[in-house]
Formats: sequence, C-alpha cells, structure tokens
Amino acid sequence: MNPDISRERENASFNLEILTNILDGGAEKTRRRREIESLVISDPDFQHEDLNFLSRSERYDAAVRKSAQMILKLREYGISDPEEIYSYKSCVHRGRPEPLDLHLGMFLPTLLNQSSPEQLEAFFMPAWNLKIIGTYAQTEMGHGTHIRALETTATYDPSTQEFVLNSPTISSIKWWPGGLGKTSNHAIVLAQLYTQGKCHGLHAFITPIRSMKTHMPLPGVVVGDIGPKFGFDEVDNGYLKLENVRIPRENMLMKYAKVEPDGTYVKPPSDKLTYGTMVFIRSMIVGESARALSKSCTIAIRYSAVRHQSELRPGEPEPQILDYQTQQYKLFPLLATAYAFHFVGQYMSKTYHRISGDINQGDFSELPELHALSAGLKAFTTWATNAGIEVCRMSCGGHGYSRCSSLPDIYVTFTPTCTYEGENTVMMLQTARYLVKSYKQARAGQQLTGIVSYLNEPQNRIQPHSVSSRPTVVSINDLASLLEAYKFRALKLVEMAAKNLQAELQHSKSNEDAWNNSSIDLVRASDAHCHYVVVKLFAAKLSEIGDTAVHSVLSTLALLYALHGVAQNTGDFLQAGLLSVPQLTQISQRLKDLLSELRPNAVALVDAFDYRDEMLGSVLGRYDGNVYEHMFEWAKRSPLNHTEVHESYHKYLKPLQSKL
Amino acid sequence: MNPDISRERENASFNLEILTNILDGGAEKTRRRREIESLVISDPDFQHEDLNFLSRSERYDAAVRKSAQMILKLREYGISDPEEIYSYKSCVHRGRPEPLDLHLGMFLPTLLNQSSPEQLEAFFMPAWNLKIIGTYAQTEMGHGTHIRALETTATYDPSTQEFVLNSPTISSIKWWPGGLGKTSNHAIVLAQLYTQGKCHGLHAFITPIRSMKTHMPLPGVVVGDIGPKFGFDEVDNGYLKLENVRIPRENMLMKYAKVEPDGTYVKPPSDKLTYGTMVFIRSMIVGESARALSKSCTIAIRYSAVRHQSELRPGEPEPQILDYQTQQYKLFPLLATAYAFHFVGQYMSKTYHRISGDINQGDFSELPELHALSAGLKAFTTWATNAGIEVCRMSCGGHGYSRCSSLPDIYVTFTPTCTYEGENTVMMLQTARYLVKSYKQARAGQQLTGIVSYLNEPQNRIQPHSVSSRPTVVSINDLASLLEAYKFRALKLVEMAAKNLQAELQHSKSNEDAWNNSSIDLVRASDAHCHYVVVKLFAAKLSEIGDTAVHSVLSTLALLYALHGVAQNTGDFLQAGLLSVPQLTQISQRLKDLLSELRPNAVALVDAFDYRDEMLGSVLGRYDGNVYEHMFEWAKRSPLNHTEVHESYHKYLKPLQSKL
Repeated sequence: MNPDISRERENASFNLEILTNILDGGAEKTRRRREIESLVISDPDFQHEDLNFLSRSERYDAAVRKSAQMILKLREYGISDPEEIYSYKSCVHRGRPEPLDLHLGMFLPTLLNQSSPEQLEAFFMPAWNLKIIGTYAQTEMGHGTHIRALETTATYDPSTQEFVLNSPTISSIKWWPGGLGKTSNHAIVLAQLYTQGKCHGLHAFITPIRSMKTHMPLPGVVVGDIGPKFGFDEVDNGYLKLENVRIPRENMLMKYAKVEPDGTYVKPPSDKLTYGTMVFIRSMIVGESARALSKSCTIAIRYSAVRHQSELRPGEPEPQILDYQTQQYKLFPLLATAYAFHFVGQYMSKTYHRISGDINQGDFSELPELHALSAGLKAFTTWATNAGIEVCRMSCGGHGYSRCSSLPDIYVTFTPTCTYEGENTVMMLQTARYLVKSYKQARAGQQLTGIVSYLNEPQNRIQPHSVSSRPTVVSINDLASLLEAYKFRALKLVEMAAKNLQAELQHSKSNEDAWNNSSIDLVRASDAHCHYVVVKLFAAKLSEIGDTAVHSVLSTLALLYALHGVAQNTGDFLQAGLLSVPQLTQISQRLKDLLSELRPNAVALVDAFDYRDEMLGSVLGRYDGNVYEHMFEWAKRSPLNHTEVHESYHKYLKPLQSKL
Repeated sequence: MNPDISRERENASFNLEILTNILDGGAEKTRRRREIESLVISDPDFQHEDLNFLSRSERYDAAVRKSAQMILKLREYGISDPEEIYSYKSCVHRGRPEPLDLHLGMFLPTLLNQSSPEQLEAFFMPAWNLKIIGTYAQTEMGHGTHIRALETTATYDPSTQEFVLNSPTISSIKWWPGGLGKTSNHAIVLAQLYTQGKCHGLHAFITPIRSMKTHMPLPGVVVGDIGPKFGFDEVDNGYLKLENVRIPRENMLMKYAKVEPDGTYVKPPSDKLTYGTMVFIRSMIVGESARALSKSCTIAIRYSAVRHQSELRPGEPEPQILDYQTQQYKLFPLLATAYAFHFVGQYMSKTYHRISGDINQGDFSELPELHALSAGLKAFTTWATNAGIEVCRMSCGGHGYSRCSSLPDIYVTFTPTCTYEGENTVMMLQTARYLVKSYKQARAGQQLTGIVSYLNEPQNRIQPHSVSSRPTVVSINDLASLLEAYKFRALKLVEMAAKNLQAELQHSKSNEDAWNNSSIDLVRASDAHCHYVVVKLFAAKLSEIGDTAVHSVLSTLALLYALHGVAQNTGDFLQAGLLSVPQLTQISQRLKDLLSELRPNAVALVDAFDYRDEMLGSVLGRYDGNVYEHMFEWAKRSPLNHTEVHESYHKYLKPLQSKL
C-alpha cells in the first residue's frame, strides 16, 4: 500500500461502511452487490485480456463470449431480479455496453409489454432461450429523437395476411440499434403502418432478419455493422435496409393496436401506454451519470493523493497534487456532484417504481411531471457528467490520456447519453414546455402540485431590486436559504422565458416560430429548474441520515454543490436580486474554506463509492496507490512491444536510410 | 451537390476568396498552400485506407510508411521552408501527429540550436539523412510540467571521459516522448548533470538507444511503447529506462554549458537561451486551436445545413437543423471563436518571429511578456477549443459519435494540448505571476508597456458601483466599448487576485502557501486577461480589412464573440459595475439578433476556412453535403462486415442456443 494513500484513509472522519450502505440503499444491498461482484470477478470464465490491447473485432468477440457465458451463469445461479441481473451484467462487462444489451433490455421487455397472449406464447420462450436474438430497431439514418418522422413502412397486404416492410429511402435505413449488425436474428422494427390505404403512424413489428439456422441475412434484408465509433467497441451497432420483406400479420405487436385479417385497423386504448419505457430509461440514465462521475472522481482523487509535483514550500518534498487549491477546485465540486446525482438517481428510480404502479392501474396523473423531470434531469446530469469526466481526466495530467487510466474509456462509454434516448437540448425543451404550461396555470390561479408547485410563489418575491435598497436574500452558509435562492432563480427564469415566448407570439408567423425564437431562454429555464431539483433532493437526503459524522461530511458536500453552482451562475442570482455584489467575495472565500474542510475526507469519500479495482480498470485509480510500477507493467504488455523491432523498421526506415 | 448546401452558398454576402486569403495571410500563401495540398492528395504514394478501420499497429505502420515517403518527396520537390514543410507534413498525415514529429520538430532543431560546431559536424548530417533517428526525451513518469524535478542522472566519469546515464527510480523512467517507443535510435535525454560531486541541473545528452545496424535496443537500454492512448494511435510514445548507459563526453550538447575533460563544469552565459523553443511551441498551439475548432465548425455547420429534423411549422417540410436557435447558439459563438483564435494565432506567430530576431541579438526585453502571453493563451485557447470540439460533435446528434464524422478523431488528437507543453492550470498561474508582478509595478507608479499597460489605468474607474446610481458603462452594440469592459474586468480581477494574495500573505506560513491559497483567483484573473487579449486582437484585425463585405461579416462575428463572452460571465461584469441588470435582457436579445444575422453566411464562413474533404476526412462535413449515401458506403467497409456472419456466432452463440 502506498503510504500517502494509507495516511489519507487514516484521516477520514466518518465510517465508510455507513456511507456505502446509504449509496447502495441499505446494508443488505451492499452485501448482495459485493457477493455478486465476487462471484463474477473470481470466475475464471470472465477473465479477459485488457480490452485496450485488442482490435475492435476481438473486443466484439470477447464480449459475445462473455455474454453467452453470462446467460448460462445467471440461470445456473438463479439470478432473476432485474436489479441483480443488471449488477451481474455490468460486473461481467465492467460497465461497458455489450452485444446482448438490447435483447435483454429492450427486445424481451417489449415482447412482454406489447404482445398479445398468442404472441407471447409464440415468441417469448424462443427469445428467452436465445433461439431468437432480438434488437429494437427504431432510429434511422435520417431520424433519431423525432421519431414521428421515421420513414420505414409496413404495408398490410390482406391477400396474404402479411405486412410488407420497406426502407423507401437511404435516410430510412435503420441505423444505430445495438446488436443489430452481427448478433441479432430478429428485430422489433418501428415502422409507419399502412393499411387500407391509410397511414396509422408508428407501430412495432417482429421482423426476422437472419436465418435461425445459418445466421445468414434473409432475402430482402441488408444488414451489417455501422462501423467504428468513438467507443462502444464491443457493440455491433447496426444498419438494416428492408426491401419488400414480408412478415405474417401476427408479427405486429398487438396488445394494444391491432390490424384485423381484412386490414381493419383497431386503435390502441391510450397513446400513453408506450410512454413508460422511455421515462424509465431516462430515469436510469441519471443513475448512470452518478456512476460514471463517481468512478472518474475515484480515479482522479486517488491519483492526486499519490502524485507529487512541483514545490509549495522551498526545500520541502513535493506536495501531493491534491493539496493544490486549483486541483481541489476542479475535483471536489465534481465529487459533490457525483453524490448529488447518486441521490437524484435513487429518487428517480423510487419515483418511477411508485408511479409505474399507478400507471398499471390506469392512473396516468403523475406521468407528465415524471416525464418532464426525467427528460430535463437526463440532460442536466449527463451534460454535467460528460464535462466532469474530462475535467477528471485532465486533472491527471498526461497520464489521464493513457488508456491505462481508464478515463478515456469511461468518457467514450458515457458520452452517448447526451445524444441518445432523446437529444439533450430537445429534452431540455420538453421540460421547458411543461414548465411554461405549469407557469401559465399558476398565473391563472391554479394551485400546482409536485415539484413545480414553486411556480405558485408570489411574484413580488422575485422582482429585481436595486441591490443597495434591500436586505440580502440569501444566507450563503445555509443550505435551506441557498435552496430558496435556487427556487427563485428557477422561478425567475421560467417567468422570463414565458414572457419572452409571449412577446414573440405577438410578432411571429406561428407558435412554432415563437417557440424557436425563445428556445435559448427556455433551455436556460429548464436548466435552472433541474439545478433547483438537484439541490432540493440533496438537501432532502440529508434529513434521512442519522449518523452524525456521515451527516456532517455530506452536509459539507451539499453546501459545496449548492454554493459552487451559485458561483458558476452569479449573473442569474444577481439579476434576480437574490445575491448582492459584496456577497460574491464571501462566496469565493467560503468555497475555499469548504475545499479545505473536505480535503481530509476526499479519499474516504471516493472509497465509499466502493468500486473494486477490477470495476475501475484504472492503473491511476488503484486502491493501493501503487501507480507507477503498474503503469510500467501495463505498458510492457502493449501489442507494439510484442517484438523488440517493429516490422515497419525493415519495411520503410531501413530502405529510406539507404536512399538518403 | 446537395441542394440545401448549394442554396446556402448562394446566400453568402461576401467574396469567399478574400476571406480565405486573410486567413492564410495573403493570396500567394493561399495559392501555395493549395498547390502543396494538391501535390500530396493526388500522390498515389499517400493514398491510404480509412485509418478508423485499422488496428493500432497497422496505423503506426501506415504512418511510418508515409513519413518515409514524405522525407524523400520533400527533398525531391526541394521543399525546405519550415512553414511549407509543416504544410506538406500535415497534409500527408491529415493533421495527425506522426512517428517522425519529434525527429523533425525537436531533435533536429535542438541539435542546430544547442550543439557546438564539432557536435553539429558529427551529428547533424547523419540525423538529417535519418541514419540517426532521434527524439526528445524530457518528460518522465513522475514529472511533466515541473521539469526541474526530473530524476534521470548523467554522472560524469573523467576516467573514461564518459557520462553514465541512469534512471534511478521507477518514476524517473522517461515516459511519453513521441517516436521513442519503436522509431528512434537516438534520444536527446534531459538529465541532471553530476560532475565533481555536484549537481548542475538539467542538461541535454545525445543518447544512442538502439543499434544503428539492427535497431535492437542497446545494452542498458529498456525501451518500448507506452501502450494505447485516447488518440495518437500513429505515434509510438515511448518509455526509456537507462541502466548505466555510458556515452562519450562529446554527447552532451555543449553550445552553452560545458563539461571539460577533467570534469570542470562551465556555466551557460544565460539561462534564457533554452526558453525560446517552449515559447515558440506554445505560440504554435494557439494556431492549432484555431485549426481544430475551425475544422469542427466546418463539419458541424455543413451537416446542420443538410440535416432536417422535427417540425417548426406543422405541415411544412422538416427544417434544416441550422434553423434552430439552440443549434445556432451552440455553433455560431464557436465559429466566432475559431476566427478569433485564427487571428490570435497569426499575432502570436508574427510576434514570436519579431521577438526571436531580438533574442538572437541578445535582447531579451520582450521575452517575459511573450512568455506570459503564450502560456496563458495556450491554456485559454486549448480549453475553449477542447470543449468546443465536443459541442460541435454533440450538435451532430448520434452521427457525431461515429468515427465517420471525424469529430472523435479531431478531439482525441487535440485534447493533449491541454496537458502537454505545460499543463493548462500551471500555464494560467505562470501568466498570473506576470500579471501580479506587473500590477504591483503599476501600483508603485511604474509605467508599463505592452499588453499589460492597462494595469496602469486609474483605480476609480473600476470601483463597484451601486448599479442604479451611475450610468451604464458598456454599450453592448459597440465592439470598442465591449473591449473596454473586458479590459476593466481583467483589471478588476487582477486587482482582486493581487489583494487576496496580499491578504493571504498576512497569515500564511510562506509565500508559497499564500500563492496556493489564492490560486483560484489567480487563474480567474489570467483567464480574464487572456479573454481581453483575444477580443483586442480580433478588434485590431478588423481594422486591417479593406473589403467592406468581409469587414461587415467579421465585425458581426467579433461582436458575437465579445457579447457571448459577456453573457457567459455576467457575474464578473456586474460585479465590476461594467454592466447593469437591465442590460442583461438586452444582451440576450442582441445575441439572438446576431445569430440571425450570421445565419445566411454560416456555411460560407466555414467554406472560407478552405479545408478540402481529404483534410477533413468527415462524411458529415463533406463539401457536397451528400452525407447519407456516403455514410452507408463507409459503413459497408467496416472490418466487421468483411464476413456476413461473424465467427463469434459459431464460437459462442450457436453453442449457447443448443445448451438452453
């Protein structure tokens, strides 16, 4: 054990295990998570060469091997709880996506939720037993988030009782679905349904794409891998071009909407029924943000504790870089953010499960708020995390750029969350739509419930004031007061956006133009709303924590999170009259104090995330802190070192020398 | 040609060629650049498979092949002007780094600048003819930016008149030098010189590391590739461990410092002599920022002109995504930034060349300012560009994540600039040190010259005022007035940092502690200073431009750059009393107007950067806008599509199916 990092651990002011339990959602969950991790990590079938040393095809190959093993082992061990499957899976693949993700996470659940009983009978067991390997083919080359405009067609032919599927344009080629390129033999294809000469919009069709015997593409099916990406090397994101592919009428998922044998279309009872999955996935992504950021913080903070550099005091040994104020200023607010997002993730997951009970009983009343919240928080947390991972990486200096740090891998694996499952700016605007609507209701005297109820607060509280003529609103040392400030900032920005929208409506050609011309303000309002929600949920979490020491350190983190957010957005708070100019200096000073307060607990706070070295896969983030020796060992295994002299020397350099 | 993008080009209000000439530095330079590009791009010897489809070893191999060809061709064509060599080289490697970069860019120049005449005689021609392939081995595993603490030792042994080189610790292993791993047979090794029992600090030693006959590592030399990185796949960044490696006395570079045969050390006449290269490289990086950002903007803006999505007006065709205000708000400020950085890069290059003339004549008077400026601007421009590339990538939605967009490649190639050649935070603090020193001189009544002369401005101009009691300082529509505001913001923040530093000194253990405890403020001050310089140089460039139409569009860009910077930092401007709260709303509105004003010229403004498709290497950024067809063609060539059925199906999936 590196003595620097040992010393850090001795300095912790709180009991690590208590905090880990809070993050896991209870001691029993911690125990079980660790049990599953041990099961996987000690399993020789899941050992693998460092993926950084493999080609993409080898990485895909290794992932398929592990996924196949995983399916067998999950059954062998009888692991069936979705959360535990998720745990096991992310341990097998060390947090990376894998070729069967869409089979397990989209194909099977969609079958379960949208099949008629006969369809369930026909398709579910073959899919469960991987005879049918499926994916979910929604996105096309020309359309992602705006799914209504998808172009793939499914035209019903009553003469044969079949649907004829087509990709009528280049841009209608299905593009991106995971596992589509090489792994799947079926896809649930989202297509515009045409029957009796009329288009009835998007519906889902179980479409065989490869032979279940030979795995060769079926006639009319052009399918393949979309090529290398920034990351996701293990996944065969694919393309699918359909040329008059005929499937039986029974392959349209018919739990809700139906096409009868004669071609008569039967509408679904509600259009909200397919809404839930999307909300669920976006809620889950909030938790992904927390994990990606907490892993990154673990690596950067541990490394900063063992890396010594430069001189603070002449003649003394080089300090740990964690002692530099600028390093703390980069990392500790991100650490606080990681905690904040963990608690937001827990809230989203809990809320989703609560509301989905209601939804199953036909009560959709809370869905709009959850929909708006999950959209905005998905964007808010992924943007912050995306930038934060890179700050962590660069805070490790040059070594962060090495694949051995694992930070490049965390980044490329995470960054698609900003654009998939709803592009972030579009997500912010969806939340804004809900906020503006709620704001108007509030102005019309309606009493709002839920998180937006603050829009009912009296107007005059947030009129801009001449700073000199009124007392300071916010007490910068008090989380409750800061939360109030975030609330009024959000209210102010929602109000401004709504008013700008109103003004645009006066001289715009259409509602849509007015909306577009206000969209910068609308995104800003959503952002402020989400920021408020995060501070609120962090503060709420504190009230649940009994242990004094843990409560104390988390309170410091929460205050840092809130105050840092104010410092990054001083213009908003000044503009809303929530802050005075002299307070800016106090905030700067208080932030520095908070950094110092957190310094002794920094390593313990990342240890509490409890990532095993195997899960981090980072030489820089090793628990034992023995970074340099292992960096050297890792490098020696680089494929370029398999021979002392690379063949290019004989091929090009030696001949060049002889010519000059 | 895609009709959308044709239409965009018809809408341009200015003559493209005039702007391209301004960016190149004159019509003749444009002509010559294009000539060189055609020479390379039409050359069959430089054709290559898409690098995204190759393994790292193949990419390294291809790069060595092209570099060897390049050396021959440069001589064949008689290209010898450094700028033209650079042009040719970056065209051959499409802007990517390559294995001979350090030989050409560091080894040869260092030989030239730091060799005695006898050394030049002995080493230069072999190196020029690639018998000696060299690299520059400075960074060690344990030390990067803080080079004084490097641990490698070179101990003089007068009995044999040799230096004995050693890597005394794991952390002293040379780590990162480009071309060190497999390509080079020599390295200029930076090591602590010991002679007659005394350490004389860092000196440079020409060290043979591989046999010039067999290319095998020499005795005592442990050398290899440091393993895969985020990018730089073509470069064999290497490690070097030296174990009692003996080199002749004559291999220490002895133009300035010397060790005589008996071991007597002779000091160099000035310690500023090795300073210039560092300043030069940092100045060059500013230009790299401009190029990386302008490439990214080209891709994102062209793609945004051909991508249609969602609906603005019901019933109408889907709009180009460039018509969305939020998309413009992401991209146009970056476009303005790319132009700003081009002009800053031109200024830095011109200033460097001017001052280096003085330096060669022993006049170092302007070096400290250039040193401070290059450090800060290197950090300022690389941070902004680094974040900007990713904004461009994500503004392309999911397709930005595909390697075919080229944006991932631009990012991973560029991002090391934030940590190499001086870690950015350290750079900002170096600039801050100069600012604080200058500020103190100004307060002491000294009249400053150069860019920091604004620190002489009277104090009372920047006292914070109660906003209501004084007239507005800044006129938001006037670049000159905005420049004043940036200046006073910088002055205010330098003053605050200096005062905080002073206050810390009262109760700190040491100067160093006080400095560390003020470092957040100091970085902020540097940032504001650099921001001011960028606005200033952009404004200065405008005054050189004669063409009315070009002047007009660049003025709009400059105003957008300046105003957007104010909007991102409103707290600073409000705090300094340079802005009033009611102006914030005006700024938001004005920014929207500027986006609309620029919209018709957006594509023309990126066309003016004049990147050939071969240089961009991006399907999304194609000049002809025919994105989807080519994306499909590109994907079909993906290695995973070489067979219809991937071997993993037979190895894992089929067996799995039979077991379930």
